[in-house]
Amino acid sequence: MKKYIIVVAGGKGLRMGGDIPKQFIPVKGKPVLMRTLEAFYAYDKCINIILVLPVDQQDYWKRLCAEYGFTLPHRIANGGETRFHSVKNGLALVDDRNSVVGVHDGVRPFVSQEVIAACYAAAEEKQAVIPVIDVVETVRRIEADEKSVTVPRDCYKLVQTPQVFTASLLKQAYGQTYTSAFTDDASVVEALGHPVFLIPGNRENIKLTTPFDLKVAEVLV
Amino acid sequence: MKKYIIVVAGGKGLRMGGDIPKQFIPVKGKPVLMRTLEAFYAYDKCINIILVLPVDQQDYWKRLCAEYGFTLPHRIANGGETRFHSVKNGLALVDDRNSVVGVHDGVRPFVSQEVIAACYAAAEEKQAVIPVIDVVETVRRIEADEKSVTVPRDCYKLVQTPQVFTASLLKQAYGQTYTSAFTDDASVVEALGHPVFLIPGNRENIKLTTPFDLKVAEVLV
Repeated sequence: MKKYIIVVAGGKGLRMGGDIPKQFIPVKGKPVLMRTLEAFYAYDKCINIILVLPVDQQDYWKRLCAEYGFTLPHRIANGGETRFHSVKNGLALVDDRNSVVGVHDGVRPFVSQEVIAACYAAAEEKQAVIPVIDVVETVRRIEADEKSVTVPRDCYKLVQTPQVFTASLLKQAYGQTYTSAFTDDASVVEALGHPVFLIPGNRENIKLTTPFDLKVAEVLV
Repeated sequence: MKKYIIVVAGGKGLRMGGDIPKQFIPVKGKPVLMRTLEAFYAYDKCINIILVLPVDQQDYWKRLCAEYGFTLPHRIANGGETRFHSVKNGLALVDDRNSVVGVHDGVRPFVSQEVIAACYAAAEEKQAVIPVIDVVETVRRIEADEKSVTVPRDCYKLVQTPQVFTASLLKQAYGQTYTSAFTDDASVVEALGHPVFLIPGNRENIKLTTPFDLKVAEVLV
């Protein structure tokens, strides 16, 4: 089957004088987003890479690619209002005949080769596959009246990406009307009534969202 | 009020030739457990530190203290069968008249001074206080039949330590019969019907449990 990966790099608009979005920050001398794309290229040199970027960041990205001599083949789609709309824009570039498509956060450069391979392999059979990890902390659920209770942490998993699907299923899912309950691709597919298959992710596959995460990233490279 | 901190360093027994328990591993040249005790000593030089250690690790700890010239005042209690029993042994050294007592994981050296201070300050009024952080990942709940569903992550918090209580309340809670539902001190206190107050923790306050965490720890020091 033909393989696609949609890498979503929403981030905030590139404000002049403001902070640069996380996906462009260099970690050990190379922007995060380049490391993320390279992970999928390393998995399969024939994978079709679609990078979703806000329109106002695309020139900046192209300059970065020139500056770093980054020539890894990829197409660019326009970022949308929400992650849902961004993925949908990326999906428009996917041919859904006999193909599988993954969706991955641009700021998760540390996904392992094993996890990528396992997600794509399982997606051919299960149609909808996501990597998850155990919760190591005690978990509390917040109740309506400012109360909270301990819940059994074995019953919860933290969800990572890539989330991989048969392209026809994911396109059908993204044909639905957007709701704020769509927090990831799995939740969009589930809204169709289709089950999602879980496989073990790798703990290092963190989403770089805080300055602390960037410090961790320097170690992980 | 008089202040106590019970630092629980269960870990696995110190098998000859095996891995040394995480709490003894040096991070940037100093064992994790020493860094943890130092965090509470830095908060208040008069705090009563009680370190709970398995009996078969106590000689090793004393040799480590001598080797590193670690003279920070603390008493030692014997580790028990489970974390519950370890905390209970530590509590036996606490005078519960007009005092507050915190319980902290030995492998969390990166708790901030602000979080320690906030927990102890709030405990005098609220009697039971724990630090929590937001979940940044999508959360799924595992159902009985191998299915799983996305749940709203805003409704969940990850629990850290120190968990701080008035000593009389915590002693009363630990007078209950042990059940496996007691995963942390808050859950023991809740079993009495007493509410637990949440305050924001610091994200760096990770529990060092994997080799990955130890790499992160090197950066955080």
